[in-house]
Amino acid sequence: MPESESPAVDSASSPTFADRLIGRVRDLGHPLCVGLDPHLAPIPPLFAQGTMATDDEQTAEGVEAFLMAVLDRIAGRVPIVKPQIAFFEQLGWRGMQVLDRVCRRASEEGILVLLDAKRGDIGSTAEGYAAAYLTQDAAMPVDAITLNPYLGFDTIEPFARVAKEAGRGLFVLVKTSNPGSGDLQDREINGDPLFGLVADGLRRFETDLAGNQTPWSSLGVVCGATWPDQARRVREALPNALFLVPGYGAQGGSASAALQGFVPGPKGREGGIVNSSRGILFPKAAEGPTDAKTWDAALDNALDQAITELGNATQS
Amino acid sequence: MPESESPAVDSASSPTFADRLIGRVRDLGHPLCVGLDPHLAPIPPLFAQGTMATDDEQTAEGVEAFLMAVLDRIAGRVPIVKPQIAFFEQLGWRGMQVLDRVCRRASEEGILVLLDAKRGDIGSTAEGYAAAYLTQDAAMPVDAITLNPYLGFDTIEPFARVAKEAGRGLFVLVKTSNPGSGDLQDREINGDPLFGLVADGLRRFETDLAGNQTPWSSLGVVCGATWPDQARRVREALPNALFLVPGYGAQGGSASAALQGFVPGPKGREGGIVNSSRGILFPKAAEGPTDAKTWDAALDNALDQAITELGNATQS
Repeated sequence: MPESESPAVDSASSPTFADRLIGRVRDLGHPLCVGLDPHLAPIPPLFAQGTMATDDEQTAEGVEAFLMAVLDRIAGRVPIVKPQIAFFEQLGWRGMQVLDRVCRRASEEGILVLLDAKRGDIGSTAEGYAAAYLTQDAAMPVDAITLNPYLGFDTIEPFARVAKEAGRGLFVLVKTSNPGSGDLQDREINGDPLFGLVADGLRRFETDLAGNQTPWSSLGVVCGATWPDQARRVREALPNALFLVPGYGAQGGSASAALQGFVPGPKGREGGIVNSSRGILFPKAAEGPTDAKTWDAALDNALDQAITELGNATQS
Repeated sequence: MPESESPAVDSASSPTFADRLIGRVRDLGHPLCVGLDPHLAPIPPLFAQGTMATDDEQTAEGVEAFLMAVLDRIAGRVPIVKPQIAFFEQLGWRGMQVLDRVCRRASEEGILVLLDAKRGDIGSTAEGYAAAYLTQDAAMPVDAITLNPYLGFDTIEPFARVAKEAGRGLFVLVKTSNPGSGDLQDREINGDPLFGLVADGLRRFETDLAGNQTPWSSLGVVCGATWPDQARRVREALPNALFLVPGYGAQGGSASAALQGFVPGPKGREGGIVNSSRGILFPKAAEGPTDAKTWDAALDNALDQAITELGNATQS
């Protein structure tokens, strides 16, 4: 269960999601978020025992064993993980059961959980999604979720209401890291790109979800590391929004580019998290048949490298 | 399992998703799609036995019993159902198991299944969603899915590729029916609204997913019944795209407004489906404690009324 279920969240001085996240980032000295994207093919035979993709139940068991081992390696070293729900849905309801267990284990190990679901729907349906993931008695409780704004700002409201009540966070897609992200997001409306208009429209939620112990709002935005100029435009519109920066590492963004939207804080530049998925989960040194000790070392090395690189970048 | 798994789908003369859907619409004489949105509160005690929302497993069982009874009433009478995945996710992995069973039962009863999931994500993640729902060996196979275009047209490609290979359909959000849909969708870019630009950008997928036996493409669009003028703009851009029209009935759209994007066909106006969820699932006459016979009659009446209204509208 997310940590926020223990402390009372109705007090104006209780730590919000953003307070808790930034607190951990400061303690650990880096903003690395480990993306839990369990692609099936690269999971080492060590966990899969040769049964992957031939049997639904055994595939789910292999994915669970792999992710639990990843959580064991990263516990105490990263502030947050980001499971990508598509790779769990790919395994049907058994995959959702694995996701449920992985999220609970991460919470037990003191790691915040940001569910990358990119949900978005009208009124009562948005409430359904909020009840699935964000409410105090959610079926599969997580600390924060990603949202898609295409349907309009009224569709963000039910999520914002629940996030405020339950001490959760939201990360709304603003400028994504894929090559075609400009098809709609960069189109100019009265001289300003659409993603800028999205950022402007999120201001009221930034205020609604203001932090109690830090300057940071629990209204976050997704802003790709591959687009540093755009990150600055979004930061101007939303000075207190947390940034989720995808596209670091395997997707080609550098550590310094990833921190474009970050600002000076008490322990270095802060203001968001930087995600790496494949670079941590599937390092080259852990490819193919390998024993547990070699795999542990490969994962630790990949983690050390990302932590050092991002930690240094926050100090420059 | 979706019907498309039986016939070979590699032949250029095999019926596509759109061919099968329009064939059924013509046979039945109306384009009604029944939305399966299992809100918990209005499910009659007949199915819930007073246990709803107090126990996860029993809640899931109540929802399943309710939806299976709905499928029994509508089998042979409607071409397609549209489960809203949020209301299943709300019940955690058990809800996904219920969704799986409901989709399979619908297919067994000869009803096409359109999963309302509004998914959208970058490359490999989009492939994960496609493998979850659209491939021949999908974990939870359905006939079609709804998608969100905000991330760009490259994120539609993995879905279009799988839809073509497996004989499935896609419905991309263009103009939604909620009050705030204009926040982004109506913003003008060089004098044209964003939703028009989305429609224009979908043309290549409309061509890729062209029908073999009808003029209709398996690239569909979501276009709210509450916005008839906009429906005409979208129809001009995409003459062969199927329309999914939400917002009929409970959301306030009339039958004639719902058919604005439809065009003359061999059996009346055709070119899409019109969704009703609450109007069919939760008719006034079936509210509160009621016996099975009364509930059956109330559901049949609600269904008769929607079918007659929409059937008549296609003939005017």
